[in-house]
Amino acid sequence: MTALPGGVDLDVAVAEGARAYELDRAHVFHSWSAQGSLTPMTVIAAEGSYVWDGEGNRLLDFSSQLVNTNIGHQHPKVVAAIAEQAAKLCTVAPQHVNAARSEAARLIAERTPGDLNRIFFTNGGADAVEHAVRMARLHTGKHKVLARYRGYHGGTDLAVNLTGDPRRFPSDRGAHGVVHFNGPFLYRSVFHSQTPEQECERALEELRRVIELEGPGTIAAVILESIPGTAGIMIPPPGYLAGVRDLCTEFGIVMIADEVMAGFGRSGKWFSIEHATTEAGPVVPDLMTFAKGVNSGYVPVGGVAINDAIAATFTDRVYPGGLTYSGHPLATASIVATINAMEDEDVVGNAARIGADVIGPTLARMRDAHPSIGEVRGAGVFWAIELVKDRETREPLAAYGGSSPAMAETIAACRKGGLLPFANFNRIHVVPPCNIGAADVEEGLRILDEALFVADAHTA
Amino acid sequence: MTALPGGVDLDVAVAEGARAYELDRAHVFHSWSAQGSLTPMTVIAAEGSYVWDGEGNRLLDFSSQLVNTNIGHQHPKVVAAIAEQAAKLCTVAPQHVNAARSEAARLIAERTPGDLNRIFFTNGGADAVEHAVRMARLHTGKHKVLARYRGYHGGTDLAVNLTGDPRRFPSDRGAHGVVHFNGPFLYRSVFHSQTPEQECERALEELRRVIELEGPGTIAAVILESIPGTAGIMIPPPGYLAGVRDLCTEFGIVMIADEVMAGFGRSGKWFSIEHATTEAGPVVPDLMTFAKGVNSGYVPVGGVAINDAIAATFTDRVYPGGLTYSGHPLATASIVATINAMEDEDVVGNAARIGADVIGPTLARMRDAHPSIGEVRGAGVFWAIELVKDRETREPLAAYGGSSPAMAETIAACRKGGLLPFANFNRIHVVPPCNIGAADVEEGLRILDEALFVADAHTA
Repeated sequence: MTALPGGVDLDVAVAEGARAYELDRAHVFHSWSAQGSLTPMTVIAAEGSYVWDGEGNRLLDFSSQLVNTNIGHQHPKVVAAIAEQAAKLCTVAPQHVNAARSEAARLIAERTPGDLNRIFFTNGGADAVEHAVRMARLHTGKHKVLARYRGYHGGTDLAVNLTGDPRRFPSDRGAHGVVHFNGPFLYRSVFHSQTPEQECERALEELRRVIELEGPGTIAAVILESIPGTAGIMIPPPGYLAGVRDLCTEFGIVMIADEVMAGFGRSGKWFSIEHATTEAGPVVPDLMTFAKGVNSGYVPVGGVAINDAIAATFTDRVYPGGLTYSGHPLATASIVATINAMEDEDVVGNAARIGADVIGPTLARMRDAHPSIGEVRGAGVFWAIELVKDRETREPLAAYGGSSPAMAETIAACRKGGLLPFANFNRIHVVPPCNIGAADVEEGLRILDEALFVADAHTA
Repeated sequence: MTALPGGVDLDVAVAEGARAYELDRAHVFHSWSAQGSLTPMTVIAAEGSYVWDGEGNRLLDFSSQLVNTNIGHQHPKVVAAIAEQAAKLCTVAPQHVNAARSEAARLIAERTPGDLNRIFFTNGGADAVEHAVRMARLHTGKHKVLARYRGYHGGTDLAVNLTGDPRRFPSDRGAHGVVHFNGPFLYRSVFHSQTPEQECERALEELRRVIELEGPGTIAAVILESIPGTAGIMIPPPGYLAGVRDLCTEFGIVMIADEVMAGFGRSGKWFSIEHATTEAGPVVPDLMTFAKGVNSGYVPVGGVAINDAIAATFTDRVYPGGLTYSGHPLATASIVATINAMEDEDVVGNAARIGADVIGPTLARMRDAHPSIGEVRGAGVFWAIELVKDRETREPLAAYGGSSPAMAETIAACRKGGLLPFANFNRIHVVPPCNIGAADVEEGLRILDEALFVADAHTA
């Protein structure tokens, strides 16, 4: 008998996994998929930076699932806190006070920048975005929302229409008051920039132009990920987010920073907007959305951090929004345990060091060695490898919104080597847990290095 | 030292509650509220049908919080299952198979009517509704959705616009493709009906007329709660839901039954649409949304049950929707434990018996005794008391969408008597856990009976 983490017997777990697969194919409808062509992997166990598939193979998790297990799988302190809160009080209605929610709100508010002092809890990132936009609309009395192309804000109707990637196409009827604009992305600059400075300046010109053409008096909010995640981990050039902040202030527009994927340690800071701090000080959005890393997804939860001005709008006026599980005790208890564990174990500092000392330098060397790598970029444990057919033309290894045999083969090579990667279109993201050890990262990068020879074979 | 459930020391819990209250007022933003005027109750413990407030007073929970704790608070089997799953595997990405999700899908699909065989898991009721509408739109290629006045479908942007109560007003821009229609409600009939038969016939005439005037070729779906919940627990007259089903079939419209509040035992059946079964057989919607009772809200979760025809639409075509926590292991493990406990303990049968033997007869007697009661109606543990100033005019004790001193005083009298009621506008709902014992129900109804003398004092 071989034991898996949690003392589970391997043979038992594999048999249970086979049954789970059968039931899944009969009864489970999956996200973002054509149901008929799925051959999903079964996960029978997980621990730290590793998962075990349906055959009992151990895989190094360079995906953090959907970039959410920032403290890795099955952190013992958070698991214990969940069991403890479950035994005490699983659920209360949102209108009642409970200790876990209050403490979670305090811990989050103490870490958010500026005066983002009040927390509205939701069930995930999408509804956090939905409520942030509603708050902005009611606060300003305006309706339109500007959102970045190459961004993702969630799967509900409004959130997916705010999204700037192909996932919104089938739901887009142009009726949501959303206008998309181009953000900075030097490697594929729509502004024909040559330098980060140019890209920053031109992207801010673009945003000002869109605001003027759409009408500042009609625009409630600008929403953007502080560092766009699934869309490609494009760290904004210095000054860009400060410039967005200034434009929002100038035109009376609410700035919403979406930190659902980028927040809570992922980029080597508590919040990725901290990378945008300038000599003039931190960039403070009016609203900030979060989910994923706030509790590593151990219990579904998300939320909005609200500044004092917007909170004041709803001091005497009813905020017209809510949900049964807002501030759910089990979910918020897991937030408390997660944040405390991250502090105790310097998880955010580890992410920063792993990025600076291991991932960054190693990917830079790999870029030199692999003609398929067009660019590497990132911070902390939040990195993208942009794969191309040709470094000169920068033609992607898979089309925007699509896949390709070259990408599929490269991903398969990672899996065969024992690595679970995160891939999107022509990119592979290196997004392991924030508390991963250097040896594990090095091992994962070695597997990735091997797999990239498969991609190289598809280059011009 | 006095112990609370879970072995918590009362004095410690009260002190912790005081601190929680302070932090709540500093950092927590609450649903559906003007934040400045809140004096929320603190819940420091709960067990079965009881909660303990911040002063350590025990209250009988006739609200089931937000009508979600169908198995009561802290059911030991579900608490144990949460701890067990937490120790094993808290979270995986939605694309991977896991055993808890597969088993939950099987248990739900086995209980849903007809061919609702596939389950798409969400984080709650609102996003379940959002995805159900998307599925209907893509399945039909049409856009409009008809929704009932006097209904509730959730707090996200689309869901709140589908909602037929005042909570949608501040977010309504008429851009969501939603058209509202009148459903049957004999006590306040918009059709001037005298009998349930008339109300049914006229309400179906109304729906057919709206379909014809809006254009059958433009309508993707009709959505309605099988029994509207917060809007007033109006059990549809015999034949109504079968008639809606027939109209949907006739015009190629998807029928979405929202069972978020009414499902999983609340009405004394697994799903409240089972009350609509006629000689011709069960009424089978095309899509059914659920949340709340599916796991009593112990972990945030919801979902959509999908029939074979709509699932087939997405066999080869990508379903463009998803979420990180779709089919979350911890959430779905709590579903498995909840459904199994409900079966083992005949919780649904208990709800039916408590309704038929205790709540129904007692409320009927109370109606005769209290001039403030205009009507009582319900089934299982899902009852509404409609309070009026005058039985002749049926003028409500609080205006639609509002409150009144009379209602506030009546609710306060319940609380003073040791009862936590559920109130909405001019109604008090009797919605205790489905597994409540007869003695507790009788005690709660006795407190309510006392409190209603306060309401009586406001009648003409």
